[in-house]
This record gives sequence, C-alpha cells and structure tokens, in this order.
Amino acid sequence: MSLLVVGSVALDTVETPFGKIEDALGGSAVFFACAASLLHPVKIVGVVGKDYPMGELQKLAARGVDLSGVTVAEGESFRWAGKYGFDLSSRDTLETRLGVFANFKPQIPPELRSSDYVFLGNIDPELQLDVLNQVTKPKFVACDTMNYWIQGKRTALMKLLERVDCLMVNDSEIRELSGDWHIHRAARWVIAHGPKYVVIKQGEHGAVLVGDGRIFYVPAFPLEDVFDPTGAGDSFAGGFMGHVARTGSIDHANLRTAMVYGSALGGFAVERFSVQRFDEIGPADVARRVQAYKDLVHFETGLA
Amino acid sequence: MSLLVVGSVALDTVETPFGKIEDALGGSAVFFACAASLLHPVKIVGVVGKDYPMGELQKLAARGVDLSGVTVAEGESFRWAGKYGFDLSSRDTLETRLGVFANFKPQIPPELRSSDYVFLGNIDPELQLDVLNQVTKPKFVACDTMNYWIQGKRTALMKLLERVDCLMVNDSEIRELSGDWHIHRAARWVIAHGPKYVVIKQGEHGAVLVGDGRIFYVPAFPLEDVFDPTGAGDSFAGGFMGHVARTGSIDHANLRTAMVYGSALGGFAVERFSVQRFDEIGPADVARRVQAYKDLVHFETGLA
Repeated sequence: MSLLVVGSVALDTVETPFGKIEDALGGSAVFFACAASLLHPVKIVGVVGKDYPMGELQKLAARGVDLSGVTVAEGESFRWAGKYGFDLSSRDTLETRLGVFANFKPQIPPELRSSDYVFLGNIDPELQLDVLNQVTKPKFVACDTMNYWIQGKRTALMKLLERVDCLMVNDSEIRELSGDWHIHRAARWVIAHGPKYVVIKQGEHGAVLVGDGRIFYVPAFPLEDVFDPTGAGDSFAGGFMGHVARTGSIDHANLRTAMVYGSALGGFAVERFSVQRFDEIGPADVARRVQAYKDLVHFETGLA
Repeated sequence: MSLLVVGSVALDTVETPFGKIEDALGGSAVFFACAASLLHPVKIVGVVGKDYPMGELQKLAARGVDLSGVTVAEGESFRWAGKYGFDLSSRDTLETRLGVFANFKPQIPPELRSSDYVFLGNIDPELQLDVLNQVTKPKFVACDTMNYWIQGKRTALMKLLERVDCLMVNDSEIRELSGDWHIHRAARWVIAHGPKYVVIKQGEHGAVLVGDGRIFYVPAFPLEDVFDPTGAGDSFAGGFMGHVARTGSIDHANLRTAMVYGSALGGFAVERFSVQRFDEIGPADVARRVQAYKDLVHFETGLA
C-alpha cells in the first residue's frame, strides 16, 4: 500500500533553552517521512533549492524514503527560524524565507499518482486540491492546514475539506476554522463539511480522534526530556499514516491504533533537534512505546 | 469505611458567559461531599456563619452527607465571587470575604476521629496538620493546596506532605511547589517528599496519577456543555475518595478506577451552576459515565 506525502522540505534554525541548531533538515514532508518510514515506505513530493544539503536528505533513502518526487529548483531552499520559551510551549518565529517554496507547484510523478494513502502537509489549500486532482484514486487522504490559510484561503480550504477523509489540526486551528471554541462541536462542524474524521493535536495534552460518532483520546507520551517541539505534529501524522498504510485498513479500530502510533512518533520527534531522534530508533523502539501506552490508560471500571 | 472531608463551606457568586448565580452553595467540602455521596456516605467538618442557608445545606443530608461536624459561628459565611471568560478557562476572582472561615480551627468531633479516609480541602496547611493530629489512624489521606499556601506556608506544607498519602493539585501548583515545569519530574519530587501518590488535575485536559513508578492518564469527559467550572477539582476529589472509601481498597488498580470516578464527577459538576447537577443524577448515571470512559481510551496495539 503506497504512501505519499506532499509538503515542505526545509532548513530549520531552532533555538530552545537547551541549545541551538542551524540549517537542519526540517519541513512537514521531512518530519512526516522520517516518522512514517519507521513503519512503511513513503514517497515525498517537494521542492528544494540548489543550496539544500542533498547528501543529508539522501540518507533518508536508506530508511525507505523515496525522494524521486523532490525537485531541485534554482534559488534558495525554504528556511524557517524559531525560538522556544522556557517551557517549550510558546515559540516565536524569527524568520520565514520561502525561497523556491514560494513557487512550489507540486507535480506528482506518474508513478506516484496511484498512491493509496496521501498526506497533504500544510501548504496553500489550492495546491493541496491540485495534488488531489493528480492522484487517481487514493484510499485515504489526510491533510493539515494552518490559521494563515483558514484566514486567507477559506474558500479553497472548504473545497478541500469535501475531498479529504481526515483533517489533522491543532485546537486553535479547528476553533478558528469552525468559529466554535468547543473542540468537539468544532470537530462535528468539520465533519459536516466533508471529512469523515478529525484529529485534533493538543501537544503535551495528547490528541483526539473524532469520527463515526465516537471520540478517542490518546495522551502524549510522558517524556523524560523534551528538547525541541518542532515537527511534532508532522511526525504524529507520519506515525498515523504510516500505520494506516502498513496495515491497509481504515476501519475505526485501526484508526485508534494509528492515533497511538502518531502520538508515539510525535513524542520521539521532540526528544532531539530536527529529525535526529529518528536516526537512533528502529521499529522495535516504536513498538515498545506503543505497548507502553496501554499501561498509561488502562483501568478497570469495576462495573459488571 | 468512613469518609471525612474538612474544607470550606461557602456561598459562591459566579458569573459565566451563560448566566449568573448569587450566594449559591459552594466551597471545597460542599462540592466534595455532593460528588462523594453519590458513591459513599461522607462526613463534613467545616464552619458557616449565621447567614448560611442551612435549609439548603440540610438537603445534602438526605443524600448521605453527615453535617454534624459543621459548626455555625457568629459572623458572616465565607463568600467567593468570580467571573469566567468566554472559553471558561480563565477566571477573575471578584471578591473573597473569609468571614467566619478566617478563624476556622477544625475540631473533629470524637465520633469522626476514627475516619478511615480523609480529604483535606484547600485550607491553611497548619490547619490540615492539625486535623491529622486529631484523626486516629486513617487508611488513606489526600490533600489539596494552592499557590497561596505554597508561597506563604511552605514549611507547614512540607511537613504536611510527609503525612499524606496523596497530593491532589493542578499543574501550576505542582510546578510552583517543586520548582520544576516538567510535571512528571515535579510529581516525582513531591513523592520524594512524602506522598506515595500525586494526582495532577488539568481541567479540560484530564488528570494524571503518578505513583508506584507508573503513570496513569484519564481524559476529561467530552461534555456537550460546560456551564460553570467552579468546584470541578473538589468534585474530582470527591469522586476519587468516594470510590476509594466505597471499595475500601487503595491498591494501584483501584486508584486508577478512582481517577475515572473523579473525572466523571468533576465533569458532572461543571454541567450546571453550583452543585445543581448533583441533584439531577444518581449512582446509575455515574456508572454509565464511567463505563463510557472505556470507549474514550480503548485501543488495540495490534502487537503480539
């Protein structure tokens, strides 16, 4: 079952209370692919500038990431710089230089158009729609978005919602999109506008799956050290979609399991800068962490 | 197994985006007792002024609340007034008039001194210690506190911690108490200073039990309407301790179940003003909600 991600391939400069890293691998497609590839092969469609450290990116190929859809264009790579506060829950964006990403018009190579599972990273919803027009018959499409598009490209975003199976956003995004502060009502609003499922990512407070008239909570894994929150949401998406693609099942029970994989991979992402943590772990580490979630939430009702 | 709560018996004036209520039953001991009494008989020790609507308070007796430890003193009852913001997560205290509560020196009536399970509501830790000196041999003691005492009565609070089994606080309180923003490390710090268990209440994000080298998460119940958050934490404590007292077990598995009862009762509390919701529900409603938590968190790992 083939898995495709379309999104940014960036160079991140990140400062946290624990250190700083410059021009490190980043972007939604990179975090997604690093996480997903621990579970299932994944193909990236994206664009980089001539300055991108292709040697670093090529290392992902050894882990099952197909980079044939990454175009190298004239110009500079997308760069993002941010600084996190003491508790890592607030961050300031210091710089966003779109570079070649400003003219990104995703072209899905013919051999990737039959992808079964598709994740549309946070890009202009018109481009996300354009990707869907190139993909022949996906089994399950999930997308991310952000307040910038909710405010600026609402019409395209609402058209996109009609065509995706799952919207994955954080609480502030779903509140702004729906105009409702109550996240469960907000999720139902989204579902009324197209997607069968909504995943609300709540950072250190875990994530919620809404769909099929049911609600499922998964906590964030209680990490000993949180180092750099960048990429947690895309790594969550990678774990979620990686599990879905690997199992080839989108039934409700399996999407719950996918939520736990998402939470596990999102947790790994924040334990190091950039995608460094994914170099240190293998599928067995992921399985161990998923197993550990059982003990985090297990209880007996004591009722008959 | 007898259950005792010592805390405030107050009159609350609360304004939310949905309405306003004046001089309604409130205070930690009242919310605790209303919640706990749905599970197990409970005895209150507290003080009110001559202006307290004793008829209203007496109604709790019909539900299994023993009011023989509530003293009526010369002066005004403790009054609190607060106003909640649009999303109910921020609140301003408009007024705190301690009245007779300023001179509250809990006297535990002889027949309540052999209580098995004791909850020390949020009062001066010196008074909490004084209560423990009057209780002969409790099986399990839990206490609440607040930033005011953490800052102003730290020595007494640290002495108290050596004598309680469980500290129940919110995230900002445990962060301030331990000096560590990382709530799991903070919980371990507390455990190193006495209590075997720590419960961290996180409002709409649920609650965490730390102890026995394990961590347990329970989400907040996804309520259709949140009306008035006042008393949620004390109702949580009431559900938790009510379940413990009813079952007479403090083993790890049963404390997890108690967390779910706590979350269920905390959720009921916020669905109406004051303790009104507890008038509408019975043990079967509580059991139904506890059962519903199973579906909120259940997943299969898919692992052997």
